[in-house]
Amino acid sequence: MPRVQYNDLIDFGYRLLSKLGFAEDDSLYITENAAFTQAGGVQTHGAVLLANIESQCGSSIDPKHRPKVEREQAGMALIDGQGAAGPVCMRLAVELATRKARETGVAVVSVRNTTWIAGLGAYLAPLAREGFFAQLLAQSSKCLDAAPAGGVDACFSTNPMAIAFPTDADPVVADFSTAAMSMGKANTLAKAGRKSNQPVFFTKAGELTDDPKAVIDGGAMLPAGGDFDGHKGYALAFWIEALTAMAGGSCNNPAGEQRQSFTLIVIWGEAFGNMDWVRSEMHRMTARIHATRPRPGVKSVRLPGERLQTQAARSRTEGVDIADSLLATLNAAAERRGVKPLAAEA
Amino acid sequence: MPRVQYNDLIDFGYRLLSKLGFAEDDSLYITENAAFTQAGGVQTHGAVLLANIESQCGSSIDPKHRPKVEREQAGMALIDGQGAAGPVCMRLAVELATRKARETGVAVVSVRNTTWIAGLGAYLAPLAREGFFAQLLAQSSKCLDAAPAGGVDACFSTNPMAIAFPTDADPVVADFSTAAMSMGKANTLAKAGRKSNQPVFFTKAGELTDDPKAVIDGGAMLPAGGDFDGHKGYALAFWIEALTAMAGGSCNNPAGEQRQSFTLIVIWGEAFGNMDWVRSEMHRMTARIHATRPRPGVKSVRLPGERLQTQAARSRTEGVDIADSLLATLNAAAERRGVKPLAAEA
Repeated sequence: MPRVQYNDLIDFGYRLLSKLGFAEDDSLYITENAAFTQAGGVQTHGAVLLANIESQCGSSIDPKHRPKVEREQAGMALIDGQGAAGPVCMRLAVELATRKARETGVAVVSVRNTTWIAGLGAYLAPLAREGFFAQLLAQSSKCLDAAPAGGVDACFSTNPMAIAFPTDADPVVADFSTAAMSMGKANTLAKAGRKSNQPVFFTKAGELTDDPKAVIDGGAMLPAGGDFDGHKGYALAFWIEALTAMAGGSCNNPAGEQRQSFTLIVIWGEAFGNMDWVRSEMHRMTARIHATRPRPGVKSVRLPGERLQTQAARSRTEGVDIADSLLATLNAAAERRGVKPLAAEA
Repeated sequence: MPRVQYNDLIDFGYRLLSKLGFAEDDSLYITENAAFTQAGGVQTHGAVLLANIESQCGSSIDPKHRPKVEREQAGMALIDGQGAAGPVCMRLAVELATRKARETGVAVVSVRNTTWIAGLGAYLAPLAREGFFAQLLAQSSKCLDAAPAGGVDACFSTNPMAIAFPTDADPVVADFSTAAMSMGKANTLAKAGRKSNQPVFFTKAGELTDDPKAVIDGGAMLPAGGDFDGHKGYALAFWIEALTAMAGGSCNNPAGEQRQSFTLIVIWGEAFGNMDWVRSEMHRMTARIHATRPRPGVKSVRLPGERLQTQAARSRTEGVDIADSLLATLNAAAERRGVKPLAAEA
């Protein structure tokens, strides 16, 4: 797989977004979050965000638009994206939520009417490092991906969620879809001609299959938990739809316009008065988890999201893997905008 | 299965708890929440709460003790149970959280050092009816039930969570374990000599099996999501441990004392300004879900938690099913305390 230097990726993203008309701090924020997930080895939710934003500039996204705070109370804010890119809204949401949570103990900020923010965990990692316990839940209003438990017709997007919290060392940052998998993963499997290791897809006719092409061709997938525990993913997916409605956004609506919504919930750990205890208990738990006997075929038991963070740290010095197709997509965007391409080693 | 009249169950619980020394309003609150889950058909997390509390009165529970608010800010409170029963702490948590959320938009209340609260959803249903979006996450500090994803040794209790939100009709109330199943369900399967429909248990030796006896005999179970999606349940289980530490409670510790902790997060829907929109979007989504084609063997697609609520409503007029063994347990507790037994029709 081609590899780029971490700083070259940051530089590339910054130049592309600046050329599109984003402010300096927005360009850096977006690029750093995209680079974190890319450096963590996730080809579907990392640097592709840069190309995604480029493709929408002039239609869904205006780099000069600012998200608008529609309502505000001591512990909450409601933001309308108003044509600002998802991560620009996210930056404002983080600023508001962390400031409010430091004052009141907790804050919730919901954003409606915005665009894709890619990997959710990236936005939470810095918060957990500062001592926040954070949740982020995102929804896409138009995609037909996941069926409700017991059904075969898609009613939900893949509605992802992330959770993050401090430990005595790196924070724990977990990021997952409330559907059986992200559409990025389903597309990657399908392109490689691979199947899922369990049948988690439905054909349009409603037949269960391990072939990811089924969902791409207008079928559906099971909720998170798959065939055994799908009622749990279903409940979480619907919860995210409810938060979207709370924010004035559209619940899943194949007839509507494609918009994204998200809700950020942050709790200020210091409000509870004993972060030393948190660190000591997390130290004990993470040691115990690492000492757990692994299943056959598993080298060692890791913390949630640990692999991504470990790889992200390594990639900062050793370089960041970028799939051929992603590199081509990024450089096509660069060419359209007259920006110097991203140079990779083969 | 024996059946009791709903009002007889309420009357029985009230009399038993009053005899134990609980205040009138605590007795009613505990009984009504236990009865809701029991009426919903859940034999493992309903009326058994009454017997559980009886068995701990004189050791872990003192009916006269009041939970203590250790810290408080505009949007948060930290409560130490101090020997008060779990549901008594829950009642205070709900009072504080809903009052604060109406003022600030959101509130989080964490409780440490308390006892079992049984079915979580019961406590959230009234909140969702009032217009709150609520989450409840609970932890037990000593049980060794669920392994981390990739491992075979139990590091977590079954750490349940519930979510609830308003619709245009009944609220959605979902309640599930972040392990593959509750220990109540595993015990029920084992007693009936039944297996799980998927291998989700580990023997002490670390072998995967569909036999629930494995976890009861000192093995473990997979996290929620089972073999396919266990990294998601693992992340949620660990999140609940982190919230426990935040509240000053003990993370899972087989060497420690058995205590329960829980965290309640409530968001006040009106703060976001458009509950009419919430109701209309929920009306559209619930209709769409109900119209989804069911999988073979499924009669119709239901909302999360719908079956429990429908059955609970029916049981209020037709009577509440109580398993033989549960009825015997309740009446043994009644006899110990000199309380008139619960009368059931065979």
